[in-house]
Amino acid sequence: MANVSEDFLRLQSGYLFPEVARRIRIWQEKNPGESVKKLSIGNTTEAITPGIAAAMKRKIDLLTDRATYTGYGDEQGDTPLREALSLHYSREYGVSLPPSAFFVSDGAKSDAANIQSIFSRSSIPAIQDPAYPVYVDSNVAGGHTGEYGSHQGGYSGIVYMRADASNGFVAEPPKEHADLIYLCFPNNPTGAVATKEQLKAFVDYAHRERAIIIFDSAYTDYIETEGIPHSIYEIEGAEDCAIEIGSFSKNAGFTGVRLGWTIVPETIASDNAPTGTVHRLWNRRQCTFFNGASNVSQAGGLAALSEEGRKECASLVTYYKENARIILSGMKAAGLECYGGIDSPYIWTVCPSGMSSWEFFDFLLEKCHVAVTPGSGFGSAGEGYVRISAYGHREDIEDAVSSIKEKLR
Amino acid sequence: MANVSEDFLRLQSGYLFPEVARRIRIWQEKNPGESVKKLSIGNTTEAITPGIAAAMKRKIDLLTDRATYTGYGDEQGDTPLREALSLHYSREYGVSLPPSAFFVSDGAKSDAANIQSIFSRSSIPAIQDPAYPVYVDSNVAGGHTGEYGSHQGGYSGIVYMRADASNGFVAEPPKEHADLIYLCFPNNPTGAVATKEQLKAFVDYAHRERAIIIFDSAYTDYIETEGIPHSIYEIEGAEDCAIEIGSFSKNAGFTGVRLGWTIVPETIASDNAPTGTVHRLWNRRQCTFFNGASNVSQAGGLAALSEEGRKECASLVTYYKENARIILSGMKAAGLECYGGIDSPYIWTVCPSGMSSWEFFDFLLEKCHVAVTPGSGFGSAGEGYVRISAYGHREDIEDAVSSIKEKLR
Repeated sequence: MANVSEDFLRLQSGYLFPEVARRIRIWQEKNPGESVKKLSIGNTTEAITPGIAAAMKRKIDLLTDRATYTGYGDEQGDTPLREALSLHYSREYGVSLPPSAFFVSDGAKSDAANIQSIFSRSSIPAIQDPAYPVYVDSNVAGGHTGEYGSHQGGYSGIVYMRADASNGFVAEPPKEHADLIYLCFPNNPTGAVATKEQLKAFVDYAHRERAIIIFDSAYTDYIETEGIPHSIYEIEGAEDCAIEIGSFSKNAGFTGVRLGWTIVPETIASDNAPTGTVHRLWNRRQCTFFNGASNVSQAGGLAALSEEGRKECASLVTYYKENARIILSGMKAAGLECYGGIDSPYIWTVCPSGMSSWEFFDFLLEKCHVAVTPGSGFGSAGEGYVRISAYGHREDIEDAVSSIKEKLR
Repeated sequence: MANVSEDFLRLQSGYLFPEVARRIRIWQEKNPGESVKKLSIGNTTEAITPGIAAAMKRKIDLLTDRATYTGYGDEQGDTPLREALSLHYSREYGVSLPPSAFFVSDGAKSDAANIQSIFSRSSIPAIQDPAYPVYVDSNVAGGHTGEYGSHQGGYSGIVYMRADASNGFVAEPPKEHADLIYLCFPNNPTGAVATKEQLKAFVDYAHRERAIIIFDSAYTDYIETEGIPHSIYEIEGAEDCAIEIGSFSKNAGFTGVRLGWTIVPETIASDNAPTGTVHRLWNRRQCTFFNGASNVSQAGGLAALSEEGRKECASLVTYYKENARIILSGMKAAGLECYGGIDSPYIWTVCPSGMSSWEFFDFLLEKCHVAVTPGSGFGSAGEGYVRISAYGHREDIEDAVSSIKEKLR
């Protein structure tokens, strides 16, 4: 038979979240009748808001009338949605990007994983440790790395940028050369945000090393601290070295509806092809490997960017941020050392008593019936931490926090 | 800056359908007020049916209530949908496949393009000529081929299986070795179908050469001829060497709603890893590069597989098949030599008077205001043909057919 991909075979163990789900399932089988309070996955729990839902239903009505039915849309996304995204960036962030720079997709995860495919296999990725596992795994599967284990707890061929308490969980640009710099702020899993100066250091690095930044801004709407950039394009010079990935998941509650976008300006340069080629190849990638996001989801996304929709999204974000506040103060009251949770739905929590991430995970599951995400699943520098997620119903959050406070006292 | 992918740089020119769209746009700019009757893209035109639309709207209602809201679903698809697909295959085709073999996706195009990524770069693809361009382009972008031009009108490293009038547009298995065999029946673009014996020859080839078949069955509901297999799994032995890709696009009208599936049985073997690895790697690919299809689309897909939904889909298919009948008899009356159009929405038409595909395309656009798809866009063996698509409103189809008949007489 044909050989399977040697690159895929290099991938270690299961993907983090399915593994967490598996352990919860096993625990639930052993404890029938008990329920687990999940503060583990970054999964939204609150209802889609009225204006956005109405827009999606209206789109379905249009599809049931042959006069207004539409089939395939443009692979790059509907023009009104791309225009609305362009306007959104200009209005909210003071950033000027043409609609043609925006590629609408079925979500930030797909784009974050696929973006490496348009770069040479010889490209060296630089990834924060800890990080959202998709950056590492997609680079392994895409053939940009060597074997697992040669780097301590990681893959050879990846430049790991350690983010820990000593640097406020914002790594400095690496000393060595890299080609693809993955950044995510507000950060998943640490909840850290980067200042303008910190991001500028990366843009300067990209210019110096002729590298490209892949900036994941999925949680940008959670930023409340004054002066923290919401988009990488707020940094001068980013438009010729940075790709930005955005999402409707965490503000409009579209985790299941699926919608995101990626910004690839035509001004991005590359070494082995003329300026504009990165844009052209991403366009080619989307036209060949993708057929556009669902038209129903896109109708919802367009509504989410309207004035009314932005208010609805803000109410959802406010809800989850209040959850984060409750968790943060609760964990501190329980004597735990915590980071993040201010401009982010994630509370990055130090495991007490020298426990490992999975030990504390098991402790919280067994003793408190609370599921979190082991920090070590995000990289070796995440060992000794767990990520607590603010996604959940208020009552479950309060319940989980009480349970943890009670057992840890 | 980082280097872009050398594999992507190997891709020739624009993707076929955008190029057709571009030529139509240019023509329309030159001919304001005139309208083009599009028989070019395989894009559905008739309304989503009532039961399926109602199911999607019900899903949106569930999402607007926090008690029934759901966020991320399983990357593999919702369990009820996977179960319904399994039941559908068993009931309609007499094929027994567990729900776990079904991976729900945002469409057949994505899966057809992505499937190569889980196989070794050294895998040799065998692709019919002509073929849906995604098979070739994804293999080029995925690094499975050499340069363009070394094969006449094609890429080195691809085994082209010529399909022409001499073999009824169903190629025989190649004489040389190949690892990944792409088959699509009913065929896009030729409209040909394969008999059980013809498919069995490919399954035998796959067993002999230890190859894997990738069977695109997106048009299976268009089959009316008795005895023609609807699924590759109707052929004995296919379950250990064949992957099948299916779609809701052309039966439920989901081209814009986006929903499809891929079947990867655990029984598929590979050379460099234990049996089950192909299934495991596709699962890993979907969990890493994808986050599940839209839950609204999945609700529609589940409804489409119900008894009522199947009737609604059948009514849509019947409509387009009647269009195909009108085109087929019209083209024959116009003196054109045609193939397909019986078990398929596509009529594969020989260009008259020795015209090339693009010459006949331009002729039809200029003289008849009808857009078709140049056969040469599907591969060098498609030169001298155009693909006429039965997707369109009845009145436009009749109008286009009259216009062609009139100008060709």
